[in-house]
Amino acid sequence: MKVLVIGGVAGGASVAARVRRIDEKSEVIIIERGPHVSFSNCCLPFHLSGIVERSDDLVLMDPVEFSTKYNIEARVNHEVVKIRPDGKIVEIKNLITGKLYEESYDKLALAPGASAIRPQSITGVNNANVFVVKNVVDINNLQSYIVEKNVDNIAVVGGGFIGLEICENLVEAGKSVSLIEGTNQVMQPLDYDMAQIAHKELLDNGVKMYLEEKVVSIEASTVILESGKSVEADVVVMAIGVQPETSLARDCGIEIGKTGAILVNHNYQTNYPDIYAVGDVVEVTSKLTGDKTRLSLAGPAQRQARAAADHMFGKYHNNKGVIGSSCIHLFNYNIANTGLNEKDCKKYGINYDFVYIIPNDKVGLMPNSKPLFFKLLFEVPTGKILGAQAIGRGAADKRIDVIATLISMNGTLEDLKELELCYSPYYSTAKDVVNHAALVALNVLHADFKQVPVSQVRRLVEDNAFIIDVREKGEFESGHLVNAINIPMSEFRDRLDEIPKDIPVYLHCRSSQRSYNVISALQGLGYRNLINISGSFLGISFNEYFLDQTTSRDKIVTEYNFN
Amino acid sequence: MKVLVIGGVAGGASVAARVRRIDEKSEVIIIERGPHVSFSNCCLPFHLSGIVERSDDLVLMDPVEFSTKYNIEARVNHEVVKIRPDGKIVEIKNLITGKLYEESYDKLALAPGASAIRPQSITGVNNANVFVVKNVVDINNLQSYIVEKNVDNIAVVGGGFIGLEICENLVEAGKSVSLIEGTNQVMQPLDYDMAQIAHKELLDNGVKMYLEEKVVSIEASTVILESGKSVEADVVVMAIGVQPETSLARDCGIEIGKTGAILVNHNYQTNYPDIYAVGDVVEVTSKLTGDKTRLSLAGPAQRQARAAADHMFGKYHNNKGVIGSSCIHLFNYNIANTGLNEKDCKKYGINYDFVYIIPNDKVGLMPNSKPLFFKLLFEVPTGKILGAQAIGRGAADKRIDVIATLISMNGTLEDLKELELCYSPYYSTAKDVVNHAALVALNVLHADFKQVPVSQVRRLVEDNAFIIDVREKGEFESGHLVNAINIPMSEFRDRLDEIPKDIPVYLHCRSSQRSYNVISALQGLGYRNLINISGSFLGISFNEYFLDQTTSRDKIVTEYNFN
Repeated sequence: MKVLVIGGVAGGASVAARVRRIDEKSEVIIIERGPHVSFSNCCLPFHLSGIVERSDDLVLMDPVEFSTKYNIEARVNHEVVKIRPDGKIVEIKNLITGKLYEESYDKLALAPGASAIRPQSITGVNNANVFVVKNVVDINNLQSYIVEKNVDNIAVVGGGFIGLEICENLVEAGKSVSLIEGTNQVMQPLDYDMAQIAHKELLDNGVKMYLEEKVVSIEASTVILESGKSVEADVVVMAIGVQPETSLARDCGIEIGKTGAILVNHNYQTNYPDIYAVGDVVEVTSKLTGDKTRLSLAGPAQRQARAAADHMFGKYHNNKGVIGSSCIHLFNYNIANTGLNEKDCKKYGINYDFVYIIPNDKVGLMPNSKPLFFKLLFEVPTGKILGAQAIGRGAADKRIDVIATLISMNGTLEDLKELELCYSPYYSTAKDVVNHAALVALNVLHADFKQVPVSQVRRLVEDNAFIIDVREKGEFESGHLVNAINIPMSEFRDRLDEIPKDIPVYLHCRSSQRSYNVISALQGLGYRNLINISGSFLGISFNEYFLDQTTSRDKIVTEYNFN
Repeated sequence: MKVLVIGGVAGGASVAARVRRIDEKSEVIIIERGPHVSFSNCCLPFHLSGIVERSDDLVLMDPVEFSTKYNIEARVNHEVVKIRPDGKIVEIKNLITGKLYEESYDKLALAPGASAIRPQSITGVNNANVFVVKNVVDINNLQSYIVEKNVDNIAVVGGGFIGLEICENLVEAGKSVSLIEGTNQVMQPLDYDMAQIAHKELLDNGVKMYLEEKVVSIEASTVILESGKSVEADVVVMAIGVQPETSLARDCGIEIGKTGAILVNHNYQTNYPDIYAVGDVVEVTSKLTGDKTRLSLAGPAQRQARAAADHMFGKYHNNKGVIGSSCIHLFNYNIANTGLNEKDCKKYGINYDFVYIIPNDKVGLMPNSKPLFFKLLFEVPTGKILGAQAIGRGAADKRIDVIATLISMNGTLEDLKELELCYSPYYSTAKDVVNHAALVALNVLHADFKQVPVSQVRRLVEDNAFIIDVREKGEFESGHLVNAINIPMSEFRDRLDEIPKDIPVYLHCRSSQRSYNVISALQGLGYRNLINISGSFLGISFNEYFLDQTTSRDKIVTEYNFN
C-alpha cells in the first residue's frame, strides 16, 4: 500500500508512524510545506522565556531520522497544490526548485492543520512588527525580532491558551506585556467567575489587560483600540485563533462541515473513502452535546491519526466523540477544564446546575497547602457530570483528569462521591476536592439547600440583602462584605434571635463549608429561606478584586483576604 | 435521636459531624479513650522532620470547638468498657477520675480504630526505647525521646506506608536510619519489580535496608535479627502493621469476620442493627475480588462514616466495595497504586496480564521531565482494568487517580486508550502515560507482540539468550546488558542478517518504545519469535541496581543509566 500524508506535525507524523508499525512493507511519504516535518507545536511559546533555550530543540525529528528509524520518506519544503481524487493522484510543488510533479496514492491522509488568523480589517496587521506563532519559523522570527531590536513593549492580541502562554513567557523574559481580548474574559473554556482568578493572576504579574477591546490599527509603536485607547507596543503577537487549512480539500470537492472544517465520518474518512483527514483541519462530534465542534488539541489529533491509519488497514476504532479537556500554566497557577461550561449548557439548552467550592488542595498542615478553586457542572435531574473547571497552585490538572475520566464513562455525582482516590497529606485530603464537590452537588441536586453564585453578590449587597458571615471574628475583621453581619459558627446557636425567619438570609464563610453546616443546623431549627453563597468569601474576593482594579465601581469588600 | 460514637479521629468524628448536619436536634456524644478527639493521623510522621513543627497542630479540633461549632459533646479520656446491646446502654469509665457510669443510646457507632502490633515474641519489645506511631501522644513520646537523648541511630521495623514515612522524616531530621522488613520488599501494594525503585531510593538516601529479616530481640543500642545480624539502634519504631480494636465488640457478641475485623453489612451495620461500625475496625468487600479485606485508610473511613450516619436517618448509600488506592512520598519519588497487583491476581486465580512502561511524565523539552515507571494490570481476555502502580518524580498520584476512576467505572483498555485528559507540556504529554499504557496493553491483549518481564532478564542473560539492544550507539556504550548485541533502531533494516529467525530474539531499548517499533517492523518482515523486554533498560537497571548493592551476585549490566 502506498500512503501519502499531507502535513507532518502531530496528526500527520502520527498517521505515518502508525502505518509503519502496522505494515513494514507499505510505502509511506509525508509531504510538508514547511522546513520541519515534526516539531513540538505546544512548546513554541516556551522559547520566548528560554525554558526551551534553543529553537532547534523544538524540532523533534528530521527527515533523516524518519528515514533511518521508520523507513518513512519525509519531503519538507514540498507543497501539495492539488488533489485529484478520481485518479488518486496529488500534484506537488518542490518549493526549493519550483518544480511541479505528481505522486499517486492508495490512501491519502490530510493533516495540514490550521493557520493563525490575521484579520485584514486591522490596519497594519501585515506590518513587519506583527507576528503569529504557529511553527518554529514563526517563533524564531518573533524571538529574533525582539532580541535584535531590543523590544520591551509587546502587545498580545487574544486571551486563549496560546495568547496566555505567550504573555507568561514574555513576562518571564522581562518584557512589558499588554493583553488585548475582545470578550470580557480570557480563556473561553472557563466560565466568567473562574476566569477572574486568571485575571487577577495576570494583573498581579504586571500584564496590562484590555478586555472587551478590539484592535483597529497597528502602528510602529502603538496599537489603537476600538474604544480609542492606545497601547504602547513595538511588537504585536496575533493569537486570536486559527482557521482550518481547507483550501486544498475544498478545491477537490471534499465536503466541509458546518464549523468550516472538513467533515469526516466515524473513521476520519472524508466523502472520498480513500482520503482521510485528521487534526486541526477536521470537525469532531461532542460526546456531550452531539453537535459538531472544532478542537485544536494535540491529544485528539494523535488519537485521530491512529484511528485513521488503523482504518486504512481494516482495524476498527471506537470513536466516542470528544469532551474537550485542556490545561495551562499561568504564573503561579495551574488551570484546567473539561467538558461543558455554563456558557455551553445555556447554548445547548441543557438543564444543569453547578457547585463552586474552594477547599484546600492538600492537608492544611502540609507546606504549600493552598485553596483549589473548583467548579463542577452536572445535569438536572440525572446528576450526570457535564464538566469541571479547576484553578489553583496545586494539582488542578489531576482533578480535571479524574472528572474527564468520569465524563467519558458517563459518570454521575453518585459515582464521583464514591471515588476512591489515592491520598497522602502530600497530595490531597482524605476526602479529595472532587469527592467534596460531589457531596455538595448532591445536596444541591436533592435541594437540601439553596445557593446563589458569587457573581450575584454585588447585586445582593447593593440591594441590602441580609448577609451573614459565619467566619470567626478575627477572620471577619481582616476583610468582609461591607454590609454583612458577623455571626460566627461558634456562636450562632446562641444568637438565633438575630437571624430573621421572614426574609431571605444569605450565608457565607471563607469557602462555603462552615456556612453549609450552619444552614443545615438552621434548617433543622425551622428556617426555610436560607441561601448559601457558592464560592463564599474567597470566591467573592477574586471576582471583586479584578473589577475593582479595572473599573471604577464601588468596593463591596472592605479588604481582600487571599491567603 | 441519641447517637453515641466510640472513638474520634477520621471515622468517629465524621459520623458525629454528619449526624449533626442531618439532624440539628439529635444528641451526639463522642467517647474517646485518648486525650484528643480529632487529630491528623496521616500527618503524624511529619512531626519527626519538622514539616509539622508543633505537635499541637496535629490536633485538628478540641472538645470546645466540637461543642460550640457542632453542638457535639466530645468526652476525651473516657473509655467505653462494655456495650449492652439488649438495653442499648454502654458502660463508660472516666479515665481521669476512675468513675464508672452508664450512657444510653438510640444508635451506636463503633470507630475505635486499630492498634499498632507489638509482637510479644520479640525480646525487649516493651523497652522504653521501643515506640509505635498511632496517635499524637505516641509521636510526642518518640520525638521527645529522640531529642532529649540526642539519639542518632534509629531502626524502623516494617516497610509499609507508615514505616517508610517515618524513615523519610527521620532522614530529613538528619538521623541514621535502618529499615528492617520481613518480606523481600517494601510497600506490599507494589509488585516486586516496582518496589525496586523504592529500594534504590531508600539506599540512595542513606537508609540501611534489611529485607527478609525478622527482629529477635531489642537491646539498649542494638537490634538482633533472626539471621544473626545486629543493627545499631538506640530507638526502635515498630511499624509492622495494625490490628482492629475488636475486644469491646467481641465481648458483646458483635460478629467478627474472616479477616479478624468487625463484619458489617452494606450499610455498615453490625449484627445488632442499632450498632454501626466504621473505619479500621471493620472489614470491607473488594470490588475486584468480592473477597473481604481490611483497608486502614482515611478516605474510606470517612465515606463509611457518612454512609453509617445517613443510614441511621433512613438515607441510603451506594456501597460499591473498595478498590484500595494509596500513595506515598518517598524522598524524590511519588509512589501510588490502585486496585490489584500481580500478587493479588495470582492469589485469586484471576487471568491477568500486565504492561510495564517508562515514558516521560511530561514533554521532554520541559524542565523536570522525568521517566514515570508505570505498571498496568488488566484482565484477559476482557481487557477490564484491574490495577496500576506508578512511581516517578512527577505526578504518579495523578495517573493512579485516573486509573482508580476507571476501575470504579468498570473501565477497559479501550476506554483508557480513548481517555481525553488535559495536556500542556508543563503537565504531561499529548498521549499521556496512561493512554500509552493502554495502547501497549491492547497490543499485548491482541497478541500483536510477546513480552517478558524485567524480572526474568537475569535468567535470560545467564542462559545466553539472544538479546538485541536497539538504542543508538552512544546510549549503548554508556551502559548495557553484558551480552546484548547493539543493533540501533536507525540501522536494523540494513543489518537483518545479524538477526536470527530460528531462535527466540529478545529486544529492548531504554523504555520499550523503540524496541516495540522494531519488533513491529521485523514481524512485518516474517520474524515470528521476537520478545520485547517489558520495562527495557531502565526497568532492568533499577531491578539489578538494588540486587547488586545488597547481594553478591554477578553484575549483568555494565553500568546504570538512570537519567
